[in-house]
Amino acid sequence: MPVCEILSVGSELTLGNIVDTNSSFLAKEIRKLGYTVRFCQTVSDDRDDMIAAFQTALDRSDLILATGGLGPTYDDRTREVVSELLGKKLILSEPVKERIRLYFTARQMPMSDNNLRQAMVPEGAKVLQNDWGTAPGLYIEEKGKEIFLLPGVPREMKELFCNRVYPLLAKKSRSTVQTRILRFYGIGESLLEERLGDLMKNSIDPNLATFALSGEVALHITAHGKSAEKVRALIAQSEREILDKVGEYCYGAEQDCLESVLVKRFAERGLTIAAAESCTGGLVSQRITSVSGSSAVFRLGVCSYCEEMKEKVLNVSEKLLREDRVYSEECALQMARGVLRLAESDIAIGITGIAGPDGGTETDPVGTVYIAVTNGQKECVVRNCFSFTGNNREYIRTLASSKALAMALELCDLFRHRDCF
Amino acid sequence: MPVCEILSVGSELTLGNIVDTNSSFLAKEIRKLGYTVRFCQTVSDDRDDMIAAFQTALDRSDLILATGGLGPTYDDRTREVVSELLGKKLILSEPVKERIRLYFTARQMPMSDNNLRQAMVPEGAKVLQNDWGTAPGLYIEEKGKEIFLLPGVPREMKELFCNRVYPLLAKKSRSTVQTRILRFYGIGESLLEERLGDLMKNSIDPNLATFALSGEVALHITAHGKSAEKVRALIAQSEREILDKVGEYCYGAEQDCLESVLVKRFAERGLTIAAAESCTGGLVSQRITSVSGSSAVFRLGVCSYCEEMKEKVLNVSEKLLREDRVYSEECALQMARGVLRLAESDIAIGITGIAGPDGGTETDPVGTVYIAVTNGQKECVVRNCFSFTGNNREYIRTLASSKALAMALELCDLFRHRDCF
Repeated sequence: MPVCEILSVGSELTLGNIVDTNSSFLAKEIRKLGYTVRFCQTVSDDRDDMIAAFQTALDRSDLILATGGLGPTYDDRTREVVSELLGKKLILSEPVKERIRLYFTARQMPMSDNNLRQAMVPEGAKVLQNDWGTAPGLYIEEKGKEIFLLPGVPREMKELFCNRVYPLLAKKSRSTVQTRILRFYGIGESLLEERLGDLMKNSIDPNLATFALSGEVALHITAHGKSAEKVRALIAQSEREILDKVGEYCYGAEQDCLESVLVKRFAERGLTIAAAESCTGGLVSQRITSVSGSSAVFRLGVCSYCEEMKEKVLNVSEKLLREDRVYSEECALQMARGVLRLAESDIAIGITGIAGPDGGTETDPVGTVYIAVTNGQKECVVRNCFSFTGNNREYIRTLASSKALAMALELCDLFRHRDCF
Repeated sequence: MPVCEILSVGSELTLGNIVDTNSSFLAKEIRKLGYTVRFCQTVSDDRDDMIAAFQTALDRSDLILATGGLGPTYDDRTREVVSELLGKKLILSEPVKERIRLYFTARQMPMSDNNLRQAMVPEGAKVLQNDWGTAPGLYIEEKGKEIFLLPGVPREMKELFCNRVYPLLAKKSRSTVQTRILRFYGIGESLLEERLGDLMKNSIDPNLATFALSGEVALHITAHGKSAEKVRALIAQSEREILDKVGEYCYGAEQDCLESVLVKRFAERGLTIAAAESCTGGLVSQRITSVSGSSAVFRLGVCSYCEEMKEKVLNVSEKLLREDRVYSEECALQMARGVLRLAESDIAIGITGIAGPDGGTETDPVGTVYIAVTNGQKECVVRNCFSFTGNNREYIRTLASSKALAMALELCDLFRHRDCF
């Protein structure tokens, strides 16, 4: 198996100004081909640092995936550094130049001279056409080493990897690795591992790994093998054993999230939903509508961010507001009922509470959120305390919106775990 | 200056299952103390790999910030590995054990035996109390090396770094580095660099670096020096020169974003806002209300995700909907006017369009978004094509919501760059 290394170029990374999402993307995708990343390096835009890092990578690794340093500006030096180390000339590629010109023309944007730097290509390199931006990727084979140079902009890098690099590498790889992801809600990471017991402790191949996300847990089942079929069977067996023990908390798999599961299952049943939100500020609406196809399911979101609007738009009783009970089970219920009526949807969510950092009281500290769901007959409201020390506004809003989505699924018997119904 | 290294532990990282946000956070924060990170390593949970990586770090670096591997589960081995390499015993810390017990009691959660692993401490290590979770941080000084072990959960790691590690290191550091961030909207990265010309090309100290974010550009001005005062003066001078050239595109600084600037400036002027959204699905509401203090400014968000609701709630004319003109300047304007009236706000936003991936037409491809702003007298509506190949639903929604926020600022003369008014 070739030694595989990811090299991320950019002072924005070593200075900590931006987060490197490219390495994890590449490390993950390359596994599908049976490669495992052994080294990651991050290096600044400094010429000497880059030469040192690329030299190290060339010395110890067979396959190098480098990202960054291909842009149009003065500190984009990957082309130069790699050419120098490999003893190759940089040549202006007329086809690349023409594509860059067209890219700008199509967008009615002026092209700056800088952009022509991106048409310089090391002698003998294969150009990986970039249909998603101006910097083409480059592929160099030299003395048994394979080197891919990709842009650092994540969107462009991903498209180039999937459409240009992956097909090239797929031809060469032999063994295969697969990961199946199961998604859990309503159970913590420690408890999930305890419930799995020996299944977890003794997991080698397939390997089980849990990851605590915002209020959820993802369980990764990873298996290796010579044939895709054998690997799939290993994973399926492991999945059955897991679901026997903790299946009631499992709401989905792979890239599912609560909102995508909700949209899919509601659409299958022809159910519609609406949401009235206060402290979550439209996050429930935003999460549901982030799912492609949600227009069949989602009818209306009302983000009533002042008391007047709660009364006027959602018909929350003026008495309740006068009595200062805007943070209460009753208010959440009235909001849910109000938006159900207004939207004429099958299901509705109502949320009110205190996301902080200010506004907490003795009885309702920051993080107290009231969440209601109703279908006109059945209804449920819960008071949640997302008030652990260190919780911030964004986190509280995320946890509250997740809980609301889970409750809506429960109400429709679409999630086996029962917290409310 | 001591050699500083960040070491991230976790197979979830080398497998690419999650993105490492800890390294960039630490690399950035440590700069405030004058340290520059020279090496980053990422290593799996495998015991041998961990020993190799920590040994390498101990050989070449003076200050090591390690994250991850301090959790309660079987594959959390950082405590053991570091103890072994330093030849130290692991000892059960009674105070830590007691804190963990209290943590669970306070949350009415059962404590699993696993959690006691987190109370094991290498002999002689200083415990860094974790008020945000169960795994304490650890600080070890040995043979001139300084080693910090921090949990991998970003929230806990950040709190521990800021409240425990930073104060410890602050006492020892001498020189100082500062970065000033300016935030631009309405100008691309290449064009910004061209407009800055020599200022950009010759930037060494202060160093200028641009970063293209989603439809925005951040410009970082970084300066080094012995005294904080001198560094501040260098940065201030550079900032003045930059703003002379491209000031009209600069909407904020540091951690500002369009929504935080909008909330701040609207609050200062006593202005209120409401939003009617279709394709952005509540993202404008969600962004504005993500800002603490937004309740003084934001009154109502309506996410009208079907034609009926546009008519019923926002009073969009039935004729327009019947004529299939839901994607049009007129519809965006009617939505803005409708929510302005309903919310009785000073300003209102209306957005309609096609976020994709389906629903595009010949005349209105995916990515076509109509955005309107009104204050009852002045109004403006624009048709945007966020239709570059490779744009996805999330990206289109982000670009559209940013544009809407910028237009609302323009309408109130709170942003100098003029696209609409």
